[in-house]
Amino acid sequence: MASGRVIGVDLGGTKLLVGAIDGNLNVHHRAHRSARGSGTAEVLDTIVEAVREASDAAGEVDAVGFGIPSLIDQEQGLAVTTVHLPLRDVPFRDLMAERLGLPVFVDNDATAAMLAEWRFGAAIDCTDALLLTIGTGIGGGMVVNGALGRGAQGAAAEFGHMTIDIDGPLCPCGAHGCLEAFVSGTALAREARAMGLDLTAAQVAELAHDGHAVARTLVTEMGTRLGAGIGNLVNAFNPQVVVVGGGVLALGDLLLGPAREEVARRALPPSRDLVRIVPTRFGAESGMVGAAVMALDGLTASTT
Amino acid sequence: MASGRVIGVDLGGTKLLVGAIDGNLNVHHRAHRSARGSGTAEVLDTIVEAVREASDAAGEVDAVGFGIPSLIDQEQGLAVTTVHLPLRDVPFRDLMAERLGLPVFVDNDATAAMLAEWRFGAAIDCTDALLLTIGTGIGGGMVVNGALGRGAQGAAAEFGHMTIDIDGPLCPCGAHGCLEAFVSGTALAREARAMGLDLTAAQVAELAHDGHAVARTLVTEMGTRLGAGIGNLVNAFNPQVVVVGGGVLALGDLLLGPAREEVARRALPPSRDLVRIVPTRFGAESGMVGAAVMALDGLTASTT
Repeated sequence: MASGRVIGVDLGGTKLLVGAIDGNLNVHHRAHRSARGSGTAEVLDTIVEAVREASDAAGEVDAVGFGIPSLIDQEQGLAVTTVHLPLRDVPFRDLMAERLGLPVFVDNDATAAMLAEWRFGAAIDCTDALLLTIGTGIGGGMVVNGALGRGAQGAAAEFGHMTIDIDGPLCPCGAHGCLEAFVSGTALAREARAMGLDLTAAQVAELAHDGHAVARTLVTEMGTRLGAGIGNLVNAFNPQVVVVGGGVLALGDLLLGPAREEVARRALPPSRDLVRIVPTRFGAESGMVGAAVMALDGLTASTT
Repeated sequence: MASGRVIGVDLGGTKLLVGAIDGNLNVHHRAHRSARGSGTAEVLDTIVEAVREASDAAGEVDAVGFGIPSLIDQEQGLAVTTVHLPLRDVPFRDLMAERLGLPVFVDNDATAAMLAEWRFGAAIDCTDALLLTIGTGIGGGMVVNGALGRGAQGAAAEFGHMTIDIDGPLCPCGAHGCLEAFVSGTALAREARAMGLDLTAAQVAELAHDGHAVARTLVTEMGTRLGAGIGNLVNAFNPQVVVVGGGVLALGDLLLGPAREEVARRALPPSRDLVRIVPTRFGAESGMVGAAVMALDGLTASTT
């Protein structure tokens, strides 16, 4: 008999977030791990162990959904590109299904977060919506015409690598002036260093909340750049809502305020007047909740 | 009895292109007019007269489709924003239906061009495709998940107002560094003037084809900027094809060559390896053909 509970896993580049979740999206048990590992076997062991911890605590679960920061080959259930994790060309879905003895569903982590926010969160009832998760880098998800958009190969919504300054700073991707080169935890720490502050992004955020003038300026500038990027997306997609998640949410309206102002300057009517730019409803757990929703959807699809 | 022929009208900011088209997309009769007029009545009279010329020559027609460079309110059949034409808040669809005595269908001109290229042209069989028509300004159309994308208000695909240079030149829209401020007939003539050449965009194109060094440089630079913009769209949409139309097609591969090279530099794999960047199949007539396809579709929908 089905328990009605599933496991959602958000497999980030640095941390692993696991939750046992019921059909009403209540999170019953959580397990956290560092996702860093020296090799494939170690990372897989860590995942299996964390999933087992959550499922043991939950009693019984019916399936597991994974959000992975990678292009996913849905046909074969593997991660095609993983910058931060040693999972490339690993038959992830089949391997996890075998080790866990449960049905396994896999998708891109930002797509999973978009799914959670669209179905149950900040983008509910929208026909057109976008999501940016901004942490170490930027992930993206999109809803167009009332359906998740993935592009021809599942590689769409790479909003972090949108050029906003053609002669701007070099991005790790090899291009110049990508949004991600201006707007990320990495960029915030770099800009702070350039101002003589040897701090992490989290420390800059804390100082900004405390009213520290330089930190405030850095965050405002980052928000303005974010707004230029979101403005481009508003003009291209005409969405009802743009949802912002990830580590930068700690900055709250210190970041989103300047972003909204820049969107008002750069996006065209009527799109700019319609769009709302809001934080994720599920906070840092959008990806985990979305992975669980994926698993619930997958079970429904396979039993009907 | 239905004739199987319809009229397609591409109502540009400066010229009007009318064609009588059959179900196999053969163009039987064309009528051209200048669309400039001092007022609403004059523009409407010109349109009616040109449509009648084409329909009289075609014998009998069943409907008329219009592509208009404006946001269209489909509910009311009117042009919500027209920068170049005095048609704002005119009940265009009903007015034309009454004066022409035929069913009338209205949509955005770039959306109409996208429809023609997607159904019968350069983007045939694509699930995800984009179109940019580049002339005086830039119009855009999009196909996502195998359907035309319009956004929440029909205002999507405004690709001309994508910031590619956050501190770049002022665009007429009020923002800085929009793609359209770099890539358009207007921009090409402006850049030529800055180099001491007092020429129209068409004259620069001619010189570039003749191998004129400065003209070649100007066109290559414009192609590179276009490539940065298309690269952003490739990362966001992961399309099989990006179709380029409009007056700049006169530049051919002098423009599209550098654009393709810049896309290869700025877009991410696997999107950049999949995407083809190609001219419109229907050349300057994509919008007109698309308007006719719209009318054919509209008739089919209303009789089934």
